[in-house]
Amino acid sequence: MRKVLLLCLLTAGLRGAAQPTAAPLTARLDKVSLTFALSPAGQPTYTVSYGQRAVITPSRLGLELAGTPGFDGQLQLIGSEVKDADETWQPVWGEVKSIRNHYQQLTVHLRQAQAPGRQLDIVFRVFADGVGFRYEVPRQKDLTYFTVQGEKTEFNLTGNHKAFWIPGDYDSNEYTYTTSKLSEVNSADITPIQEKSAPNRVQTPLMLKSDDGLYVNIHEAALVNYPALMLNVDTKTFGLTSQLVPSATGAAAYLQAPEHTPWRTVVVADNAPAVLASKLILNLNEPTTLTETSWIKPQKFVGVWWEMHVNKASWNYSDTGNLKLASTDWNALKPNGRHGANTANVKRYIDFAAKNGIEGVLVEGWNVGWEDWANNWKEEVFDFVTPYPDFNVAELQQYATGKGVKLIMHHETSGSVTNYERRQDRALTFMKEHGYDAVKTGYVGRIIPRGEHHDGQWMVNHFNRTAENMAQRQIMVDMHESVRPTGLHRTYPNWLASEAARGNEFNAWSTGNPPEHETILPFTRLMGGPMDYTPGIFQIKLEDWNPAQNKGRQVHTTLAKQLALYVTLYSPLQMAADLPEAYEKRPDAFQFIKDVAVDWDDTRILAAEPGDYITTARKAKGKEEWYVGAITDENARAQTLKLDFLTPGQRYEATIYADGKDASWDKNPMSYQIRKQKVDSKSTLKLQLAAGGGAAVSIKPVSR
Amino acid sequence: MRKVLLLCLLTAGLRGAAQPTAAPLTARLDKVSLTFALSPAGQPTYTVSYGQRAVITPSRLGLELAGTPGFDGQLQLIGSEVKDADETWQPVWGEVKSIRNHYQQLTVHLRQAQAPGRQLDIVFRVFADGVGFRYEVPRQKDLTYFTVQGEKTEFNLTGNHKAFWIPGDYDSNEYTYTTSKLSEVNSADITPIQEKSAPNRVQTPLMLKSDDGLYVNIHEAALVNYPALMLNVDTKTFGLTSQLVPSATGAAAYLQAPEHTPWRTVVVADNAPAVLASKLILNLNEPTTLTETSWIKPQKFVGVWWEMHVNKASWNYSDTGNLKLASTDWNALKPNGRHGANTANVKRYIDFAAKNGIEGVLVEGWNVGWEDWANNWKEEVFDFVTPYPDFNVAELQQYATGKGVKLIMHHETSGSVTNYERRQDRALTFMKEHGYDAVKTGYVGRIIPRGEHHDGQWMVNHFNRTAENMAQRQIMVDMHESVRPTGLHRTYPNWLASEAARGNEFNAWSTGNPPEHETILPFTRLMGGPMDYTPGIFQIKLEDWNPAQNKGRQVHTTLAKQLALYVTLYSPLQMAADLPEAYEKRPDAFQFIKDVAVDWDDTRILAAEPGDYITTARKAKGKEEWYVGAITDENARAQTLKLDFLTPGQRYEATIYADGKDASWDKNPMSYQIRKQKVDSKSTLKLQLAAGGGAAVSIKPVSR
Repeated sequence: MRKVLLLCLLTAGLRGAAQPTAAPLTARLDKVSLTFALSPAGQPTYTVSYGQRAVITPSRLGLELAGTPGFDGQLQLIGSEVKDADETWQPVWGEVKSIRNHYQQLTVHLRQAQAPGRQLDIVFRVFADGVGFRYEVPRQKDLTYFTVQGEKTEFNLTGNHKAFWIPGDYDSNEYTYTTSKLSEVNSADITPIQEKSAPNRVQTPLMLKSDDGLYVNIHEAALVNYPALMLNVDTKTFGLTSQLVPSATGAAAYLQAPEHTPWRTVVVADNAPAVLASKLILNLNEPTTLTETSWIKPQKFVGVWWEMHVNKASWNYSDTGNLKLASTDWNALKPNGRHGANTANVKRYIDFAAKNGIEGVLVEGWNVGWEDWANNWKEEVFDFVTPYPDFNVAELQQYATGKGVKLIMHHETSGSVTNYERRQDRALTFMKEHGYDAVKTGYVGRIIPRGEHHDGQWMVNHFNRTAENMAQRQIMVDMHESVRPTGLHRTYPNWLASEAARGNEFNAWSTGNPPEHETILPFTRLMGGPMDYTPGIFQIKLEDWNPAQNKGRQVHTTLAKQLALYVTLYSPLQMAADLPEAYEKRPDAFQFIKDVAVDWDDTRILAAEPGDYITTARKAKGKEEWYVGAITDENARAQTLKLDFLTPGQRYEATIYADGKDASWDKNPMSYQIRKQKVDSKSTLKLQLAAGGGAAVSIKPVSR
Repeated sequence: MRKVLLLCLLTAGLRGAAQPTAAPLTARLDKVSLTFALSPAGQPTYTVSYGQRAVITPSRLGLELAGTPGFDGQLQLIGSEVKDADETWQPVWGEVKSIRNHYQQLTVHLRQAQAPGRQLDIVFRVFADGVGFRYEVPRQKDLTYFTVQGEKTEFNLTGNHKAFWIPGDYDSNEYTYTTSKLSEVNSADITPIQEKSAPNRVQTPLMLKSDDGLYVNIHEAALVNYPALMLNVDTKTFGLTSQLVPSATGAAAYLQAPEHTPWRTVVVADNAPAVLASKLILNLNEPTTLTETSWIKPQKFVGVWWEMHVNKASWNYSDTGNLKLASTDWNALKPNGRHGANTANVKRYIDFAAKNGIEGVLVEGWNVGWEDWANNWKEEVFDFVTPYPDFNVAELQQYATGKGVKLIMHHETSGSVTNYERRQDRALTFMKEHGYDAVKTGYVGRIIPRGEHHDGQWMVNHFNRTAENMAQRQIMVDMHESVRPTGLHRTYPNWLASEAARGNEFNAWSTGNPPEHETILPFTRLMGGPMDYTPGIFQIKLEDWNPAQNKGRQVHTTLAKQLALYVTLYSPLQMAADLPEAYEKRPDAFQFIKDVAVDWDDTRILAAEPGDYITTARKAKGKEEWYVGAITDENARAQTLKLDFLTPGQRYEATIYADGKDASWDKNPMSYQIRKQKVDSKSTLKLQLAAGGGAAVSIKPVSR
C-alpha cells in the first residue's frame, strides 16, 4: 500500500515563511463575477457573485497529494492571465442547433513557497450563467507521477438554502431526492441503494435555491481520469467541502503531469428556467474528435424489458441456480417457461417497432448468465456472446433487417468490470457481425476490481474508455449504473445516454418515484447529460400484469405525464418502455410517442420550479414541428403557455394529450383526453395538469 | 467493503454442544501414513508419519469464512471413504517419459454441528513420498457464494528443523534463500523486493531438514481460483500456520460452491534426491484437456535481453521521460542510440540462432512504452502491438522465417494487469498475424487493480486465464514475476515455464545470487514447476561489457557451472542467455548448450543436498543421449558418478565440460577444460567441482 502522508504539520510549521497576500484577481461576464485571492497562509481562495449578490463567499481551493506536500497552502502567486472567448459550435445532436460558448478566463499560476517549488495552475472560466474552474498540474521537473489524496475545494454558501439532494453513495445515484434546508441534510435514515453514505455527504449535481431567489447548481464538467466529486455539507455554516470518491487503496486519483482535474461548475441564475437552459457544462467539455458522425442516430426504441420489471417474464431462461458460466451446459437447462428474450417474443417487438416507426428493439436477457447474475460479487457472470437456447441470433438479425428495425444489444456486467473489459473486444466484434450498432450497458451491484467504486477514478476511466472503444467501432452506447454524466456526450456523441439516477422502473417494484421526482431530475442529474429514464408507461397500475406479485404497485404519474416526459426529460434516446399490448390498447395516446422527436433545433423552458413543475417546448430537428411537455408534482396545476416561439404567420394544429378531468396520479392515473386545436404564434394554450399529472402537445404546421 | 465477522465468540460459546471425538481415520502407502481426527471441540486435525517417525504432529485444519461460521470447529463427522489409485500417465513434456500416480485417498465428510449444518469434505491423498490434502465445499443448499477469510491449516513440525526460506512477500519471490533453524526465521532485516513481509512469514515451497535426516517439503498443488499459501513460522513451537495472500479487500478468496482449495502438499523422504524426484505435485494436478499438442515445443532460445542487463543496450528507444502512451508521437522521439531491439541487432541474433540450431529469439524492448515503464503504478503503460520506429515487425518476421527461427514475443505488463487483460486479445491476434507462437510475459512492479497482489486470488486467476487463453490460440507462454508454479504445467502444457524466483539476471546488477543459490532452487521454487532461470552466462565478469556501470559485478558461478545448470535446473524452455559474441569467443564450451536437450525420457538425481550440491543425469527425449550436470555451492567438491543408468552393452563418448584446475567462482570463474572419454554402463566418472563451480557432461552413443 502506498503510504499516505499529508504533511499537514509541516505546512503549518512553515507558516512563518508564507508569502504576502496576492492582490485579488477577478474575471467577470455580465452579472457573474469571480475573485481569486491567496490568503496570508498561501491558501488559494475564490468568491463568486451574481450582480450585487454573493453566491460563493470566500472558499478554499487546493489539491492534496499523497506522500508529499501538495497545493493546499504555502503557495505563491507567480503570474496570471485573463482572456476572453466567444465562439459558437454545433452539437452532433442536442436540445438546440447551435451553442454559444462565451466566457472570460482567468488563469492563475501558483508555486509552492518551499522547495522544490512545484507548480499548479488554477483556471477559471466565467460565463453569463456561472463559473467553471479546474486545477492544472503543468509539466515540470519535480512532479511527474503523483497521487491526489483529496481536494480542498470549498463552496461556501451564503445561507441556509433549500437543497435538492441525494445521499453520497459512491456506487449509486438511484435515490429519490430529498428537499430540505442545508441545515437539515442528513441521510442517516435513508436506506442505501448500494453503499451507505456519510450522513452529510451528498452528490452532485446539487440544486440549491436561496431565500432571496437565486438558483445555484453545483456539479462538474468533463470528468476524465479522476473520481467523481461529492460534497460534504456543513449544516451549521452552509459550507460545502469536497469529497472525492476513493479508490480501492483509499487514494483519490493516480495521475501523471501534465494533467488537470475536471471542471468544478457553479451555475447561477435568478430564475429556474435559466438553470435548465444553461450550456455551461457542455461548453466546458472538449469537442469530439469524430469527423464522421452520420452513424450516430438519436432514436426511440422499445424492448423486452418492462415485462420483466412487472413480473410477466424473466431475464433468466431457467430457474436453476448456482450455475458457473464456464461449466454449465446451457442447452441442458430446464427452461422456466417465462423467459422474455425468446425468438418469438422478440419478433413481436420487432413487428411492433416496424409498424410504428420505432427505430430500435432492446432485448435484455438474451445471453446466458442471468440465473446467478446479481449480488454475488462474482467475476465470471456473463460472456456477452452466448445466447440462450431459445434466442436465435441469426434468425432475429435477418428478421429485424427485413423489417427495417435495429436490435439493440445488452451488456449487463453485474459490476464485474474486469470480466467485461477482457471480453469487450470479442463482444463488440460479435455485435458488428450480427448487425447491432447500439448497446445498453449495465453495472448492477458491487464493482470488480473489488474495492473500487462505480464513481471512482478507475471506473470513470472504464466508462470513458468504453465510449471511446465503441466510437472507434461506430457503436452507440447507453450506460446504466454508470457514473453520472458531466457533459462528455459533447466529446463522445455516440454516448447517447446514461441512467445514473432513479429511473422509471423503480415504480414497478419499489416504493416508487414520488410525483415530484421528474420535476427535480432536470435540475440535478440531467444537468450533466441525457438520461435513459424509460418513460411511456401506459399501464400505470401494474396489478394487471401480475396481480399476485404487483399488488398495489403503480407508476406515480398519470398517463398524460408519461407522455410529457418525452419532452421535459431530454434525451436523444427515448424508450417507449411499456409493453406493445399496452400501447395497442391506446393507439390515440401512443400517437404522441410515435410523433415526438428525439433531436431538436431549439428548446424553450417555458416554466419551471424544481420539485414543482416544468414546462418545456422543443422544435424538432429540421422540421417546423414543436413538442411541448408540461409536468407537475403531486399538486394539480394550471399552465398557460404563450406560443410566441412559433414562426409568425405560420398556422399549426396542436394536438393536446391532457389528463382527464377526473385524473390524478394515485386515484385515476390512466384517465386522459386528447383534443386538437389550431394555433399560431399569437395563441395561448391552457393546460390543466392533474395531481401528479402532465400534458403533452404536438404542434404541426398546417397549410393555410 | 464486505464486513468480516469471524464469529469466533459464537463458536466458543457453543462449545458445550460439541460432538464426541471421531475415531481416528487413516490412510497409508509404503512408509507414509496419515491420520485424521476430530478434536472434542469439533476441530479437524491430522498427523503425518514416515515409517516410525512423526513428520507432522497433530495439526489443525479448517476454513474460515467471512461473515458466517465456517469450518474451523464445531464440526461433526458424517462419513468417510478410502480408495486406492494407481495409474500411469505421459506428460506432454517433462523430466521423465511417464509418471506413476499411486496413492491411497481418504475422504472425510464433515458437517457444522449447528444449523444450517453446512458441509465440508477434506480429501487426503497419501503417496509413497508424501501427502496432499485439500478442502472441498460440496454443492449444498445453504452455501453457494462464500468468502474465505483464512485457513486454519497447520503444519506442526517435530523439531527445530533446518529451513531454506525466503520472506513472505505477497508480490515477489525474487530473494536469495536464507538457511536457518526454524527458531531463527526472521526477515526483519531483509530488504524487500516488493512488499515487506511479516518477519516470521515465509513462502512455499519451504524446504526443511530434520536433525534426524528427514527431508520435508511443504508447498501446494494446482493453485486455481485461490490465493497462494504462505506460512507463519512459530519460532518457539516450530509450528507453521497458514497465511493466504489477501485480496484488495482483505479477504482471501471469493468462491462459489462446489469448489475446492488447492492441494496442500507435504513431500517427505529420508534422502534429498527423492525430494527432487517426487512427482507428487504434478500428480495432484488435473490432466490437460488439450488433445492436439504437437505445437508445443520445448526449446532453447537466445535473445535481446542480457545486453540490457549488462548496460550495453537499453529497452527504451529514447531517453525522453514522462511520456503518455496514447498521446506520444513515437516516431518523433529522439533515439538514444542504445536501443537493443533494433532490426539490425535482432537479425544478428536470428543469424546466431539459425547457425547454432537454437529455435527461438526473444526480443525485449520491441514495443513502445519503455521510457516510463516501471515503478509509476501507471495503468496505461504498454499496448503490446506498437513497435518502436527502429523495429520492423514485417521485415523481421520474413527474415526469421527464412532462417527457420521463431521470434518470441514479449509482453511486459509493468504489473498493470487490467491494461493487459483489456488488450490481450488484440495482442495475441497481433502475434499470430506476425508469426509468433510463444510469448514471455512480465509483471514487474505493483499490481493494478491497485490493492491486489501478485500472489492473490485475482492474479492467480489472471495467470491461469492467460495460460488458457493462449492454449486456445496455440501459443506457448513463459511468465515472469508470476505466482510461483504449483504443477499447473500438467494442465496447461503450453505454460512452459515461469520465473517467480531470483533468476540469473540478479547477478548482473545486484549483490547477486550466492553460489549456493542454484543448489537450493530445485528443492524450493522448482518443486512446483520449471523456471526460466536464463543460464549460460560465459562472460562471468561483467566489467568487460560496460566497465563504468558494471564495476565489480559478476555472475557468482564458474562458467562450467553455467553449463551444468541446463541439466540441474529443469526447464523445457532454456535460454542461452549471454550475448552471441560471448559464445562466439568460446565455441568449444558453447557446444554443450547446442547439444543439451530440453525434453527428457528419464532423469536420475545422482547426488543432492540442498544448499550444497546437486548432480543430475537426464536422458534426452527419444534419443540414447544422456546429459549430466553437477553443481556445488561455495565449496569445491569432488563427485564420482556411476554411469549405471546407461544402456548395458552400449558404448558412449562422454564430453566433460569441467572447471579449470585453478577455477573458482570469485577468482577465476571463466577457467574451464573440456575432455572426452569413452564410457559405458560400468564406468565411473570423476568430476572435480571448483568453489562455486560445476561440470556438464554430454554422453552420446558411439558405434562399437
